[in-house]
Amino acid sequence: MKRETHETITIPPLDSLLTDEERSLVSSHATAFDVTAGTILFDSTSCKGILWIVSGVVRVYMVSDEGREITLYRLRDGDLCPLSVSCLLGSMPLKALVSAETDTRVVTISNDAFARIHERNAAVQRLMLSTMTARLSDVMWVVDQVVFRGIDRRLAEYLLSRPSELVYATHEEIAAELGTAREVVSRMLKYFEKAGLVTLSRGRVRVVDAAGLRAGRA
Amino acid sequence: MKRETHETITIPPLDSLLTDEERSLVSSHATAFDVTAGTILFDSTSCKGILWIVSGVVRVYMVSDEGREITLYRLRDGDLCPLSVSCLLGSMPLKALVSAETDTRVVTISNDAFARIHERNAAVQRLMLSTMTARLSDVMWVVDQVVFRGIDRRLAEYLLSRPSELVYATHEEIAAELGTAREVVSRMLKYFEKAGLVTLSRGRVRVVDAAGLRAGRA
Repeated sequence: MKRETHETITIPPLDSLLTDEERSLVSSHATAFDVTAGTILFDSTSCKGILWIVSGVVRVYMVSDEGREITLYRLRDGDLCPLSVSCLLGSMPLKALVSAETDTRVVTISNDAFARIHERNAAVQRLMLSTMTARLSDVMWVVDQVVFRGIDRRLAEYLLSRPSELVYATHEEIAAELGTAREVVSRMLKYFEKAGLVTLSRGRVRVVDAAGLRAGRA
Repeated sequence: MKRETHETITIPPLDSLLTDEERSLVSSHATAFDVTAGTILFDSTSCKGILWIVSGVVRVYMVSDEGREITLYRLRDGDLCPLSVSCLLGSMPLKALVSAETDTRVVTISNDAFARIHERNAAVQRLMLSTMTARLSDVMWVVDQVVFRGIDRRLAEYLLSRPSELVYATHEEIAAELGTAREVVSRMLKYFEKAGLVTLSRGRVRVVDAAGLRAGRA
């Protein structure tokens, strides 16, 4: 983790909501970090202030005692990490991990400085509430998926939601995304392959019949 | 649903955070309702203001297209309903249902009046953020349970968490609580019964070996 200290710190869209005075308060109480893909940014034991993602993508996920994972949501440019809000409140942080999926720049603002701005700035208050509401909605979506949807539909939707029909991911990574075991993903992918929906090779899944996958034709 | 209009409306603990002026603003922009057990209070299509539970217990849950349910959390005396916060923000409410489990008194405060108070009152802002954080934590707990725990452990913990060793609930109700099918609950309860952990009768489960149930001795 590399600490930056010599640049002006800007966090869109927070900056656009601040007065000049508030912006300089943030600048003098914020620290920017450039981290490489794979770095754990937050682990439920650290309260280092309010955490913002300036650029890059971070994944927020839960891990079981046995090491199984499930993704709750991802944060991107300008997003606030809701886990760090519990630091502001002086309460225990929520139990989840935050890790950088790409090279990522984050900024932490000290709790005291941020609390002073939050108290006076209605737009910042709305940003905080809307962020918490959006993340609550994200996690409710995960509950909906894991409780009400079969793993076949969830795997199909995962494959269809990728930017390209060629998905670079190991069965292990897909399992961690969906909160299931690697064996379950492997079995289901083979089933999709037999049905002519995907082709499989090491570390890659190619969707060859997106319409069939969407329609559940397996 | 019976509307009350002739009483002073008080919502602990919100009231304790308000100035006299704010308290009278709330009073003139709030409506109290007394509802009977089973009433649906919120269904994701209605934005009637910020909803508070004054007394009683309400259950917040999700329902699948096939009618299966899972409980996300319960709200009690003085709790704010986080689904109604999206109304304040002018965004779509979160997709969940809120229903009264007991006879319940709720109060709705108009969005405009509440927004005016929220903007100026730092203690109310903290209450809102801590409520949203607590509910996010609740729903993350549900994800943890449904993804990482077997239904045997979840059913055992459900039975152990009831106030008495005699649990009045149908298999259907327990299934709706845990987000599974009735048949799964019935099968697992029979398995517990064979292991001498519970006895079953119509609409009731009696825990006869709490230590065994806790230790997973089935």
